[in-house]
Amino acid sequence: MSGLWFTEKQTENFGITMKVNRTLHTEQTDFQKLDMIETAEWGKMLLLDNMVMTSEKDEFVYHEMVAHVPLFTHPHPQKVLVVGGGDGGVVREILKHPSVEKVTLVDIDSKVIEYAKQYLPNIAGELDNERVEVKVGDGFMHIAQSKNEYDVIMVDSTEPVGPAVNLFTKGFYAGIAQALKDDGIFVAQTDNPWFKADLIREVQKDVKEIFPITNLYHANVPTYPSGMWTFTIGSKKYDPLQVSEDRFHEIETIYYTKELHKASFVLPKFVKDLTE
Amino acid sequence: MSGLWFTEKQTENFGITMKVNRTLHTEQTDFQKLDMIETAEWGKMLLLDNMVMTSEKDEFVYHEMVAHVPLFTHPHPQKVLVVGGGDGGVVREILKHPSVEKVTLVDIDSKVIEYAKQYLPNIAGELDNERVEVKVGDGFMHIAQSKNEYDVIMVDSTEPVGPAVNLFTKGFYAGIAQALKDDGIFVAQTDNPWFKADLIREVQKDVKEIFPITNLYHANVPTYPSGMWTFTIGSKKYDPLQVSEDRFHEIETIYYTKELHKASFVLPKFVKDLTE
Repeated sequence: MSGLWFTEKQTENFGITMKVNRTLHTEQTDFQKLDMIETAEWGKMLLLDNMVMTSEKDEFVYHEMVAHVPLFTHPHPQKVLVVGGGDGGVVREILKHPSVEKVTLVDIDSKVIEYAKQYLPNIAGELDNERVEVKVGDGFMHIAQSKNEYDVIMVDSTEPVGPAVNLFTKGFYAGIAQALKDDGIFVAQTDNPWFKADLIREVQKDVKEIFPITNLYHANVPTYPSGMWTFTIGSKKYDPLQVSEDRFHEIETIYYTKELHKASFVLPKFVKDLTE
Repeated sequence: MSGLWFTEKQTENFGITMKVNRTLHTEQTDFQKLDMIETAEWGKMLLLDNMVMTSEKDEFVYHEMVAHVPLFTHPHPQKVLVVGGGDGGVVREILKHPSVEKVTLVDIDSKVIEYAKQYLPNIAGELDNERVEVKVGDGFMHIAQSKNEYDVIMVDSTEPVGPAVNLFTKGFYAGIAQALKDDGIFVAQTDNPWFKADLIREVQKDVKEIFPITNLYHANVPTYPSGMWTFTIGSKKYDPLQVSEDRFHEIETIYYTKELHKASFVLPKFVKDLTE
């Protein structure tokens, strides 16, 4: 293991480690430490506060699964909000849905957007699309000021430390409910069940008190802790498990399929227990 | 990261790393390097040739998914063969099925059995059950000498290097077909789709030429490469996706459920492509 290696301690006593071909950029922004590195295994990779955010090789899993599950659940999504997600990957997937007229992205850190555009053009390339409005600001505040406005809201945040800490509170979910239209849907990444079981249990409990339809789905992201990532979905009207077959139109994906849409809600027993 | 850490390079340029509280045993057996360690994150862990075989904290995933998918697919499994699996975890799960009269386990390395019994009693504890026969020997040879004998065969091997190299050949699958009864089923672990896509594609192709019903299913094992592990199933008669609901009897599990049984066959698009 000679040369430069990056190690993320995903817990105090466990982590992943990978060979780094070269570092592309490193900076302490106003909000977090940002590193852009080129790894031998995963291609270029964005780190925030020394945690893997996205890599060229496996980014499609997370971005597809955040975007397509709610967008195929909603019969006619037109206005979509992304909180966080400054790398642009979720926006790229959202734009595959022709019904979407406008995507608003609110990320607190302009540097994430800037360096994603520079170093990860395959991920960030659609941030300049005319259907997209990019705002630099506090997602919590943006939500608090929005009423009855969005069809779908996606929370693509970092872990509940640092700038994202407010994005895992019941007050935030209540704000999301108000920012959504009467038949709106939201989804948030909720980490993994092996190391963050308590977080999943709490978020599920909080969201259930606000949204009549609450559920949890999962996907395999190899560079994220445990390889099993979860997403909490809250919906006012449409059930993600009751999507009719004719609603799935053809989109190009690498991970998502209409069959996986439903199967991703079928949880291992110990994970299902966290939702009850 | 002070103190003793174990790092498994899962590929040339990527791996997992974990804190080791203490080493319990280390030995070069006749077949492989064997280490038993106590880790801070995953409990006690068995390593073979420096690769994670099983850990106390996540072993249930692999063992449950190897055993219960074929055993619930077969309507009345009585005789079961395990090739490899000397740690005893798969045997423990098999014995939860009351129809099973006899389990034969054939592992080439007696030291795996010996040290699993000593250090991993929660995993290996059922190896002394009266329904179990443990043989130390070559699984390939045992298969070659068996005709029309087993209802279910499970291949719980290491990677296709070292002692397990013969267990990933078409000749071995043909032998398995002969060792099975006319309505028999077999399952083999087939690594992960991120780093071993070619292996999965080849095994699927080989097994399809021998078994009329061939499929691939997956489970999340955090200590295995990529966190997504796959299992190839070959069946002469019974389709794992056509199991009637009344066949599922109650067993205690942490990961497996009857709903997950079917959902685990729904693959991400890039994995499904490997089976076609």
